[in-house]
Amino acid sequence: MIRHTVAFTLKHAAGSDAETAFLSDALMLERIPGVQKFERLRQTSPKANYAFGFSMEFADQAAYDGYNVHPDHVAFVRDRWVPEVSAFQEIDYVAL
Amino acid sequence: MIRHTVAFTLKHAAGSDAETAFLSDALMLERIPGVQKFERLRQTSPKANYAFGFSMEFADQAAYDGYNVHPDHVAFVRDRWVPEVSAFQEIDYVAL
Repeated sequence: MIRHTVAFTLKHAAGSDAETAFLSDALMLERIPGVQKFERLRQTSPKANYAFGFSMEFADQAAYDGYNVHPDHVAFVRDRWVPEVSAFQEIDYVAL
Repeated sequence: MIRHTVAFTLKHAAGSDAETAFLSDALMLERIPGVQKFERLRQTSPKANYAFGFSMEFADQAAYDGYNVHPDHVAFVRDRWVPEVSAFQEIDYVAL
């Protein structure tokens, strides 16, 4: 199992319609084949400069690779992530 | 539910006895009251400069606060974390 996470901050104002729309539209990611346990999260540590997070799991590297190149993921990154996200940190985990 | 995570890198050489000892001794953290779903993880994203991670969950902020001030946690941070960890990023999540 690979857990793929990304903590991020949006360019949109907190509570704005644009923020709500981004977080809602991101639900399309969980319909991409291979995505398991998709979660939309609020980042709450004062020691991290990120407001939100997504977390998802893949059974193996092949499933993760399939997600990365899936047209719906590529389009989301191009059309929503790049223009609307101001900062992010990807962190991926496997069991030790 | 609050998910507390920390990605980190050790000062120890990869595969060293000191690395193994740190990761093994950290299991004491899961015995601190309030800690749920404690996980020791390897960080695998090439986009993040961290080698490992811990993840744990707390039922609520009171449980998290109790962990933070518990003598066993305070001692671990003082005696092991500060001297042995070279870099880290805490990220905490709650459901959106």
